[in-house]
Amino acid sequence: MTWIVNRWYVAAWDSEVDRAPIARTICGEPVMLYRKLDRSIVAMRDACPHRLLPLSMGFKEGDSIRCRYHGLLLGPDGCATEMPIKSEKVPKAVCATLYPVVEKHRFVWIWIGEAAKADPALIPDFWPCSATGWTFDGGYNHINCDYRLVIDNLMDLSHETWVHQGSIGQHEITEAPIETVVEGEEVKVRRWMPGIEPPPFWRDALKSAGPVDRWQVCHFLPPSSVLIDVGVSPVEAGDTIESHDSGVRGFVVDAMTPESETTTHYFWGMARNFDIDDAGFTARFKAQQGQVFDEDVEVLEAQQRSIDANPDMKLRGYSIDQGSVRARAIIRKLMDMQAA
Amino acid sequence: MTWIVNRWYVAAWDSEVDRAPIARTICGEPVMLYRKLDRSIVAMRDACPHRLLPLSMGFKEGDSIRCRYHGLLLGPDGCATEMPIKSEKVPKAVCATLYPVVEKHRFVWIWIGEAAKADPALIPDFWPCSATGWTFDGGYNHINCDYRLVIDNLMDLSHETWVHQGSIGQHEITEAPIETVVEGEEVKVRRWMPGIEPPPFWRDALKSAGPVDRWQVCHFLPPSSVLIDVGVSPVEAGDTIESHDSGVRGFVVDAMTPESETTTHYFWGMARNFDIDDAGFTARFKAQQGQVFDEDVEVLEAQQRSIDANPDMKLRGYSIDQGSVRARAIIRKLMDMQAA
Amino acid sequence: MTWIVNRWYVAAWDSEVDRAPIARTICGEPVMLYRKLDRSIVAMRDACPHRLLPLSMGFKEGDSIRCRYHGLLLGPDGCATEMPIKSEKVPKAVCATLYPVVEKHRFVWIWIGEAAKADPALIPDFWPCSATGWTFDGGYNHINCDYRLVIDNLMDLSHETWVHQGSIGQHEITEAPIETVVEGEEVKVRRWMPGIEPPPFWRDALKSAGPVDRWQVCHFLPPSSVLIDVGVSPVEAGDTIESHDSGVRGFVVDAMTPESETTTHYFWGMARNFDIDDAGFTARFKAQQGQVFDEDVEVLEAQQRSIDANPDMKLRGYSIDQGSVRARAIIRKLMDMQAA
Repeated sequence: MTWIVNRWYVAAWDSEVDRAPIARTICGEPVMLYRKLDRSIVAMRDACPHRLLPLSMGFKEGDSIRCRYHGLLLGPDGCATEMPIKSEKVPKAVCATLYPVVEKHRFVWIWIGEAAKADPALIPDFWPCSATGWTFDGGYNHINCDYRLVIDNLMDLSHETWVHQGSIGQHEITEAPIETVVEGEEVKVRRWMPGIEPPPFWRDALKSAGPVDRWQVCHFLPPSSVLIDVGVSPVEAGDTIESHDSGVRGFVVDAMTPESETTTHYFWGMARNFDIDDAGFTARFKAQQGQVFDEDVEVLEAQQRSIDANPDMKLRGYSIDQGSVRARAIIRKLMDMQAA
Repeated sequence: MTWIVNRWYVAAWDSEVDRAPIARTICGEPVMLYRKLDRSIVAMRDACPHRLLPLSMGFKEGDSIRCRYHGLLLGPDGCATEMPIKSEKVPKAVCATLYPVVEKHRFVWIWIGEAAKADPALIPDFWPCSATGWTFDGGYNHINCDYRLVIDNLMDLSHETWVHQGSIGQHEITEAPIETVVEGEEVKVRRWMPGIEPPPFWRDALKSAGPVDRWQVCHFLPPSSVLIDVGVSPVEAGDTIESHDSGVRGFVVDAMTPESETTTHYFWGMARNFDIDDAGFTARFKAQQGQVFDEDVEVLEAQQRSIDANPDMKLRGYSIDQGSVRARAIIRKLMDMQAA
Repeated sequence: MTWIVNRWYVAAWDSEVDRAPIARTICGEPVMLYRKLDRSIVAMRDACPHRLLPLSMGFKEGDSIRCRYHGLLLGPDGCATEMPIKSEKVPKAVCATLYPVVEKHRFVWIWIGEAAKADPALIPDFWPCSATGWTFDGGYNHINCDYRLVIDNLMDLSHETWVHQGSIGQHEITEAPIETVVEGEEVKVRRWMPGIEPPPFWRDALKSAGPVDRWQVCHFLPPSSVLIDVGVSPVEAGDTIESHDSGVRGFVVDAMTPESETTTHYFWGMARNFDIDDAGFTARFKAQQGQVFDEDVEVLEAQQRSIDANPDMKLRGYSIDQGSVRARAIIRKLMDMQAA
């Protein structure tokens, strides 16, 4: 296993889950998700306890699911309420595994590991996705690579110069020095660009002229998310890399959920505190962000194939990789602790 | 291996085999089948003893087969009669494995195991497929699942309610009690529905009104067949579950031949003792039966994928599964006896 | 491993390699090839020493290659000259493996094994491909089979009768006796057909009437090539199987480079010493040869699948296989010597 258990992972966008079940394999476990009549979400192992047909192929009856094969009826607690022969008494043990699930920050979070340890306080703090004065939207990609390659990618934005040279790549960013900070189980890679001329995107967002301080903070949160805090404030506001709310600010939101050891569910989006009622901006930005991530997907899948084809070679960490090296060390340490 | 050896398996419909060889992998062994000029059938390992090219790619010369690669000529006994260089003396050992093969009940049966033990008396008794006063036709599906999942499916007709709810599903059938009987190496799951109003299909077949006794007997015959005896007789005839020939009767015929551990050749059809000269009925019924089995194929392949994706889970047997549990126990016992 | 290391293999036709990198896996190793400004060729492991992205996806800058992911810049010696952060000092160890490469006889040869042992004198002698008075052209096929199956195929031309019965197959050839000669690490299978009427192809090439001596010499050169010397001379010239330059002569050139244990790069062509300025002949012959090899590909891939499907069976050697049996014995011996 290459991921941490006893943690919350993003299973879906809140908008993906409704009354009809959807099937998604999370950390190697086939899961089915659906909403009950009260709109709360059920996450259940996607295999009938009887003969293992995926329950997601079944028929919804109220909040229950009836298996399409022999008609075993399971309640939203995963336990059978009716056997294939209606008159048969239901044994107690006939239950599908239920997963703790919480809807928060526009995502559906699922607990992978021991259900008894599921503590909602452990959900990674994606506050910009749901805070007042902010707006948030995004998309989804399935990537044929180890989820940790996506973390590597996001903890080092210097790749933008080359991977995204046709879109958002900028040489200046690579040239600004970075600082890597470990805070408990979290890692931040920080870039502070003081007193610069804002690029057009940020000048338009700020809606004023004059030099700005600009920042980029790539923030790894276990088990597998990266939030990238980006923005500019007027120089005269005196913002710092620690505190910068005087201008315009956005968060590139990235949640990477392992599907298997070599495939990943990638949930991405942009939260921002400017032009928050401009739906056109939101739609245009999401479309652009999708195109940029398609460039990443091409590279990440080629990287995974190359790792598989060159088993004698190892990934190396240079100075730009400080962030991902530390993030991977935390993942490894948490996995080792669990193994012990 | 998940199947019994030293048994007869259906290799093909009799109509599938002719002078040109056909290739089919039976119980993991690539086999080629063709008819000789006298219409008898040859079953030979589908690999040239020289360089292993499939013999089914070769050229027929009378009753012999010439390999397409170097021209080795093999007689219908599998042994070489001409070497790639014509003038070379043929060594005795140059032979392809020949499989015992018998044509019976409209099928071509092949013996998998030690040829010396092949006893035609061991061919499962598919008597309705060739008895006077009966007619029989059917089709073929390739299914990506363990053949035992198809046996499970057929030994419990309660699945019809859900899998076939758009076609032949009927709640009443599930509600009738079943009785499971083991007779030596065979298993029967019997349903007797006395004094009921016949459904339209059977009323039309019987061509008379009034209450009937109706039955369904799912009959497992090793190594891997299920015959389902179905029909109705007028109540006044006094038929029983043991003996019921006063009305109209049919057999759903199902022969599941393992191709590999997770793929199956499925030969299916319907034998009946009514309207036997009505070719239109035969054709319509075969078309309908094909559609019904397509619904099974969808479920069976999904079930196999789910079994593979949930290695921590086991198939469970409830009361409806009495028949398949017993059939699998017989298969396991016969496999264990062979291993010993 | 099923191939000999510390040997030269054909990596590409000379015309396939230019300034833009091409990717090709040779003996299991992903390799990238490109030409420098001085037209010499660089062969480098196709994985960035940093994060393993294929370098062939990168950007050429003069004779260097810049990785598309983080911009690591590697010189044509495989070593980094610029880190992802330009200002960072380049450590010495940051190098991609470089492969010895030599351009000779119209092919690009790559050394697989220990670079220090690469001796250009060990390049197989494909002299007709580059000799004065000769012309040479050909093509490429990717084949899904073990490269040794292609060697078997070429060391025994009797297969032409059956595999190529629609094109070049001739019964007479199979009937002429063969003689197999081992010369050190090389094997020759020789056919001498004295005083025969030339077939139309050779009569046209010879441009004169009258009986000829005809020859076919299949010549295995390790690690994995077969040159087939074919032609005719007027009987009165007194040529022999050892020396025959009085008439018209061609070489069917075949270089089989393992991609993996079950896939092969097949470079083929025809060198000839007649009508050497007739470009139309060259083009027509190449098109015909391509069609003939397509027939071989069909058989070779079916043979590989059959070998995989019949693990209990072994390839057998008959008298026609003398050449390939000896060629395989040499391959095995050279592999064993390396293992020791």
